[in-house]
Amino acid sequence: MAMSNAKSARGRLLETTQDMLRESGMSGTGIKNVVARSGTPIGSLYHYFPEGKTQLVTESLRINAEKSRKLLAYFFDGKRSAAAALRSLFNTAAEGFERAGANKGCAIGAVTLDLMPADTGIRDVCKGTFGQWVEIIAPQLPFSDKRFRHSFAITVVAALEGAFVLGKATQSGDSFRAVGECLASMVLRSAQRTRQKPLK
Amino acid sequence: MAMSNAKSARGRLLETTQDMLRESGMSGTGIKNVVARSGTPIGSLYHYFPEGKTQLVTESLRINAEKSRKLLAYFFDGKRSAAAALRSLFNTAAEGFERAGANKGCAIGAVTLDLMPADTGIRDVCKGTFGQWVEIIAPQLPFSDKRFRHSFAITVVAALEGAFVLGKATQSGDSFRAVGECLASMVLRSAQRTRQKPLK
Repeated sequence: MAMSNAKSARGRLLETTQDMLRESGMSGTGIKNVVARSGTPIGSLYHYFPEGKTQLVTESLRINAEKSRKLLAYFFDGKRSAAAALRSLFNTAAEGFERAGANKGCAIGAVTLDLMPADTGIRDVCKGTFGQWVEIIAPQLPFSDKRFRHSFAITVVAALEGAFVLGKATQSGDSFRAVGECLASMVLRSAQRTRQKPLK
Repeated sequence: MAMSNAKSARGRLLETTQDMLRESGMSGTGIKNVVARSGTPIGSLYHYFPEGKTQLVTESLRINAEKSRKLLAYFFDGKRSAAAALRSLFNTAAEGFERAGANKGCAIGAVTLDLMPADTGIRDVCKGTFGQWVEIIAPQLPFSDKRFRHSFAITVVAALEGAFVLGKATQSGDSFRAVGECLASMVLRSAQRTRQKPLK
């Protein structure tokens, strides 16, 4: 019983941190607010996260990063076309964004924009996660040129992060849908053209 | 002399606020830190910005928004091609980002990710600015379909905001360059295809 409560205190702290990171980034996630909002005693925080905020943010981001990689790998599974994967990814993001009240960004992106030069450990998580997203997407793109696949995958990741920004500004998931449609259309147009005139 | 000092205190407060918004968003921009970093007395802040942080952030963003609109209109001037405009925009952003220490995002984007539901005035500035960017870019795109021009312009704005996120994570301007190259290439490929098979 004690262990189960203890475990859920840890989980609640991590979940609340993820929510707050998505709402207002790292600077907006005060450790006292996490404690109050999660309804856990302050002692739990220092028990489970003796290094304080840095550790709490780092672990929350790692959980978030793991979920995001699984989601991306689910869409870019090599079975559906890249255009279909892009449409599904951005439509799913739009729905999730709206379901969460059109007020929660991407935790990794929101934290990244708050990074100061000294935040090296947290930066590594953010940088590593974005890099992994690019590595999941790039091989699934129907372009013969490897460098172009890489640039396009970076553009997909950038546009996804930017869609969260536009979504938060407009309080709507429509930016995700517009970006998804556009990128899917780009893939189809480019792939058709590549088939006509293959790049060597 | 007094007036000139007074004016420069106001200007310094606005400039420092812009710098801090770019570094760590709205949550990370504490009014006491703005005062300390700008070297102005606290009295100046309440004299020039009687409504406090909201007014300071709103006015800083308006200045930032005005600059950004001018810069976009300079690139998308109707004289150079859309592909050339995209390349110039993203290469210029890459250089500016690196010159500023590869540590400063876009003030509008960073503030947007920190918006809470009650921040209606600041949200209006962010939303309005992104909308204006789309309106500057869309008419310059060489696609016959109006809806596609609009989606592509949203994608450009999203990818620009996302490039700041990736840039901050990697501490390099290379994400801007990759995105700019990719979008320019997309425009060329799509426009060529549109010429071959015009959309009706």
